[in-house]
Amino acid sequence: MVQAKTWILRKHFEGFPKDSDFELRVQQVPEPKDGEVLLEAVFLSVDPYMRPYSRARMKEGDVMIGTQIAKVIQSKNPSFPVGSHVVTRHGWRTHTLSDGTDITRLLSDWPQDCPMSLALGTIGMPGLTALYGLEEVCQIQPGEMVLVNAAAGAVGSVVGQIAKIKGCKVVGCAGTDAKVSYLKELGFDHAFNYKTVTSLEEALRAASPDGYDCYFDNVGGPFSSVAIPQMKQFGRIAVCGSISLYNDSTPQTGPFVQQHMVFKQLKMEGFIVGRWEHKSAESLPRLISWMKEGKLKCQEHITTGFENMPAAFMGMLKGDNIGKAIIKI
Amino acid sequence: MVQAKTWILRKHFEGFPKDSDFELRVQQVPEPKDGEVLLEAVFLSVDPYMRPYSRARMKEGDVMIGTQIAKVIQSKNPSFPVGSHVVTRHGWRTHTLSDGTDITRLLSDWPQDCPMSLALGTIGMPGLTALYGLEEVCQIQPGEMVLVNAAAGAVGSVVGQIAKIKGCKVVGCAGTDAKVSYLKELGFDHAFNYKTVTSLEEALRAASPDGYDCYFDNVGGPFSSVAIPQMKQFGRIAVCGSISLYNDSTPQTGPFVQQHMVFKQLKMEGFIVGRWEHKSAESLPRLISWMKEGKLKCQEHITTGFENMPAAFMGMLKGDNIGKAIIKI
Repeated sequence: MVQAKTWILRKHFEGFPKDSDFELRVQQVPEPKDGEVLLEAVFLSVDPYMRPYSRARMKEGDVMIGTQIAKVIQSKNPSFPVGSHVVTRHGWRTHTLSDGTDITRLLSDWPQDCPMSLALGTIGMPGLTALYGLEEVCQIQPGEMVLVNAAAGAVGSVVGQIAKIKGCKVVGCAGTDAKVSYLKELGFDHAFNYKTVTSLEEALRAASPDGYDCYFDNVGGPFSSVAIPQMKQFGRIAVCGSISLYNDSTPQTGPFVQQHMVFKQLKMEGFIVGRWEHKSAESLPRLISWMKEGKLKCQEHITTGFENMPAAFMGMLKGDNIGKAIIKI
Repeated sequence: MVQAKTWILRKHFEGFPKDSDFELRVQQVPEPKDGEVLLEAVFLSVDPYMRPYSRARMKEGDVMIGTQIAKVIQSKNPSFPVGSHVVTRHGWRTHTLSDGTDITRLLSDWPQDCPMSLALGTIGMPGLTALYGLEEVCQIQPGEMVLVNAAAGAVGSVVGQIAKIKGCKVVGCAGTDAKVSYLKELGFDHAFNYKTVTSLEEALRAASPDGYDCYFDNVGGPFSSVAIPQMKQFGRIAVCGSISLYNDSTPQTGPFVQQHMVFKQLKMEGFIVGRWEHKSAESLPRLISWMKEGKLKCQEHITTGFENMPAAFMGMLKGDNIGKAIIKI
């Protein structure tokens, strides 16, 4: 019998999450029976989607949702030998019993010099989100001008780099000067701190006077109200997230988008990475190749200690991280 | 020398157009030279797009933009003999000199029992707009649930009928009980008066408890804020117009759309019919066939007299018309 620590959603978030919305609870996890494995979390992920999905997918008292990299520490399933690593969606918990149907082995050809935690970031869900938003939703073409916000985050930083790999120009917006420096290091053509510019409208226009072909939107809300009028004819907007809206107690409002949509014949599409799950086997190796070639750089913002997960989650929502926010046990 | 009456945009519209924004002006039109024809308007069109495009495409003193059916009354161009009819984009004017490059002969196989004015409506730009919005933008499939607003208008009434032809179910919203009766005559599955229902949200839900696959949006604004949350997963929104917003002096605001776009993976696309101009030669005969088969009914709201054009235009913006608003000379 193993003791699992779990983080429980004690109270549904109202506005910005707070410490008292979470509760650390210990569960007893029985020994694995035939076909089962016992997992121990190694890296856990905190991601923006957890905030809006907390209400849609969870009830008070549930373990917080999320993905982790775990190590098999006991096994009665030959597909998952002791010491092997898996990706699971078991949420915020240190130990889990699995029958093997809800876990995936880490890629067999995972590069030796590549931290496993990247399977939660650039070589995982956030990386695939960036890839599909550009390829499937925006269908970006070489030479196009791409705008991305939350550009130093787990998804945004990959968006900009893939857009460059594909021969586009990229403008990235982020909320601290350190993030802006990071974007320039990554090769973004233009980057600015949207919190300190005098006018977002003017900053976007200065970065690309002719407007934007593609807008990879992680932020939504007032940022989008400024960006959408600067789209070019037939522009495409991939709506990945809307972190500026997740913590609203009462919904924010802004100007209606319809007239811009018609006059410029814009396309806006919301998407969730799981739509292209059937493509993972061919997409993850592409991300790995770009990384090996030095075209796709990764940065992680690592918090140590399972007990710090709520703080890491709230920090990520506030924008503390450059790159992927990861919890290391 | 012929005298042409023209309607001039005297002052850019501020808010809802008013009589004093227009001015009737007489122009002298010279005799046609070689290659030229003299046209006399027979039917003129007033359409919602003229309101937003007045600022984008016109300056004060210009003739109001628009399409008309005209008769060739003098010709020195063998392609357009006297007595033939053409479609032109010459705007609000009774007589026009043309060199033949900016006019199109009415379809040679125009049905004898079909009023020529339909070339400004169901068998013209509004009909094609309905067709392409459903086929190209929404890519509607048999069995899907389609929502259309301004449903008794020139475009909306065709949208509902084509959706039925294609095996869909259709919910239509309009602003008078007479329009609702008309929609039911046309075969809409559900129709209601959005101005008199207690709750638009509840009326839309009652009409289709499972939500909507496709939303053909002619209205935008607050209507869309209620409709978009009732889209099904992977729903498509064809934004054709936003008549509820055209007359704003200060832009209206509403809740941001991004979270709905992501959670339901919705696609919203604005479009202008001219994008598919290359398809007209195959699309117009399809519309005519449906009309001959009795599947596509047309109604016109005819105002007689060129001098009444501004009143007809303002009436159309207020929703006076059932079917296509036409001015007959």
